[in-house]
Amino acid sequence: MSKFPKKIAIFGIGLIGGSIALGLKQHFGAKITILGSCSKIKRSQKAKELGIIDEVIDLHAQPLGLKLVTLIILATPVGETIKLLKMLTRINLGKCLIIDVGSTKEFVINVAKQLLGPNVSFIGTHPMAGSEMSGFENADPNLFRNKPWVVCSKQLSFITELIEILGAKMIFMDAKKHDALTSWASHLNLVSSSILVNTIGNQKNWPDVAKIASSGFRDTSRLASSDVEMKKDIIFTNKDNIVKALVKLRQEIDLFLNLLNSSSSNEITNYLSKAKIIRDHWLVNF
Amino acid sequence: MSKFPKKIAIFGIGLIGGSIALGLKQHFGAKITILGSCSKIKRSQKAKELGIIDEVIDLHAQPLGLKLVTLIILATPVGETIKLLKMLTRINLGKCLIIDVGSTKEFVINVAKQLLGPNVSFIGTHPMAGSEMSGFENADPNLFRNKPWVVCSKQLSFITELIEILGAKMIFMDAKKHDALTSWASHLNLVSSSILVNTIGNQKNWPDVAKIASSGFRDTSRLASSDVEMKKDIIFTNKDNIVKALVKLRQEIDLFLNLLNSSSSNEITNYLSKAKIIRDHWLVNF
Repeated sequence: MSKFPKKIAIFGIGLIGGSIALGLKQHFGAKITILGSCSKIKRSQKAKELGIIDEVIDLHAQPLGLKLVTLIILATPVGETIKLLKMLTRINLGKCLIIDVGSTKEFVINVAKQLLGPNVSFIGTHPMAGSEMSGFENADPNLFRNKPWVVCSKQLSFITELIEILGAKMIFMDAKKHDALTSWASHLNLVSSSILVNTIGNQKNWPDVAKIASSGFRDTSRLASSDVEMKKDIIFTNKDNIVKALVKLRQEIDLFLNLLNSSSSNEITNYLSKAKIIRDHWLVNF
Repeated sequence: MSKFPKKIAIFGIGLIGGSIALGLKQHFGAKITILGSCSKIKRSQKAKELGIIDEVIDLHAQPLGLKLVTLIILATPVGETIKLLKMLTRINLGKCLIIDVGSTKEFVINVAKQLLGPNVSFIGTHPMAGSEMSGFENADPNLFRNKPWVVCSKQLSFITELIEILGAKMIFMDAKKHDALTSWASHLNLVSSSILVNTIGNQKNWPDVAKIASSGFRDTSRLASSDVEMKKDIIFTNKDNIVKALVKLRQEIDLFLNLLNSSSSNEITNYLSKAKIIRDHWLVNF
C-alpha cells in the first residue's frame, strides 16, 4: 500500500507546481489533500476555485495545517525558494521532507542545509520539463511524462513514488554535476535565446524584419518569452557555468566566421552537417 | 474567370514545392496539370504515384511538355535553382513566366536576368514558411496560409492569384531589402542554431547533457536539423549580410557578459524583460 502522504503542501502553483498538483489529483483523486499558495493571495484563491489545490496556505497567518504535512514541494523561482526556506524555519513543522523543483541546485541545497533543523530533510530535485507558458492555467498532469527528473540525493523517501506517479524518469546526480550539465542543456539556451532576440530587436529595421519573421524565429526565440524572474534567478545561482558556456558560444561564432572567410563550400557543408547529425541523433534517442 | 495557367511545372517537389502543388490541386482539382521533378527520378515517380504531380519532367530527355507550360516554379535550394535556370535556357520554351521561391533573392535574380531570353520573364519570390522537415511527405496545402510571401517585382502576372489561392499575404520588396531583412528574420536564426548545437555537442559531457536536454534545447536547436544544402546555399548567396548579423550577435554576447560581471540584479532583469517584451509583442502582432 502506498505510503505517499495524503496531505502535502506545494508552494508556487504555477506551470510546474500546478502540473504536479494535477498529476497527483489525477492519481489519488479525493484521497489526497493539497495545500498550496501562489505569490499572490488572489491567485491562490483562483487555484483553489479551479480545484488545483484544496486549501490556501498563508504563511503570514500561522498556517497550523502545515504541521500535519509530511511533504512540502517548493516550486517557485530559486530566489523565492530561498525566502520560503527562511520562512519555513520559523514555523513549527513536524517531521517533514521538503523538496524543491528549481532549475539550479547547488546554491539552494547549501542554503537549505544551513537553515533547516534536524526534523526536516531537504532534497533538491529538477524535473526537466517546461514551456514558455507560465501559470497554473497552462498546468498539465502529463507535463512530466517520460521526461527526466533529476534528484540530487539517494535518501529518497517519497520521491520515487512522486516521480513514478507523474510518469517521469528519475536520474541521480550530485548538485555540482547537475548545475554544470544544465548550463549546457538548458541555461545556455535560455540566455542565448534572449540575447538573439535583443540582437535582432535592436536593429533599426526590426519593424520590417518582424513582418517577415516566421517559424524559424518563433522557435529559436521561444525561450526569450519564458518567465524573467526564473531566468534571472538561474543566472545568479549558476553564473560561473553560464559564463563559461557563453564564452564557448562566442568562440564557436568566431570559428564559424573564420570558416566563412576562408573556407570551401565543402567545409561549410561539413560544419552544418555535423550540427544536423548531433541534433537529429538527439531527437531520435532522447 | 481565372487566367491562371492550367498546365504548370514545378522543379523541386520537396516541402515547399510539394505544398504549392497540393494547394493548387486542392483549389483547381483535375482542372490543373502539374509537371514536376525532384532531384532524383525515383522521388519524382513517387511524387507522381502519390498524386502530388501529374507528370514527371526529365530535363535530360527533351521535355517537350514544357513548351506548353506558361508558369514554371523553381522550388529548389538556390544553387540548384541556378543550375536549372542554365538548363532551361537550352530548352525552347514558349512565352513563359518563371518564378523561384528560394531563401535569398539578389543573387538568383541577377543570374536569371543574364541568362533568360526575351520570351521568358523571371520574378523572384519567397514564401516565409518552412519547417525543419523536408520532402513532399511533409507537404501541406495549408503551409502558406496567413504567412507572408515576399515578391521582388511589381510585374505580377499570375503571382497575385497563386498567392491568393495558397492563402498567403503578398509583400513587395526589392531583392536587396529582402536579403537584408531575411538575414535577421531567418538566416541568423538558421546559422546560430547550428552554431549553438555544435557548441553544446562539442563538450566532453555532451552524452550526459543529451540525457537531460528537454524542450528548451529542442526548440532553440530545431533549425540545426533543417536541410544542409539549403542552408549552405543561403550562406553563400547572402554572406555579407549574415556575417554582419553574426558579428552583432557576438557583440551582444559580449555586452551580456559585461552585464553579468558588473551589474545589479535589476539590470539583468531589465535585459531579460526587454527580450521578453520584443518577442511577446511579435508573437501577438505578427
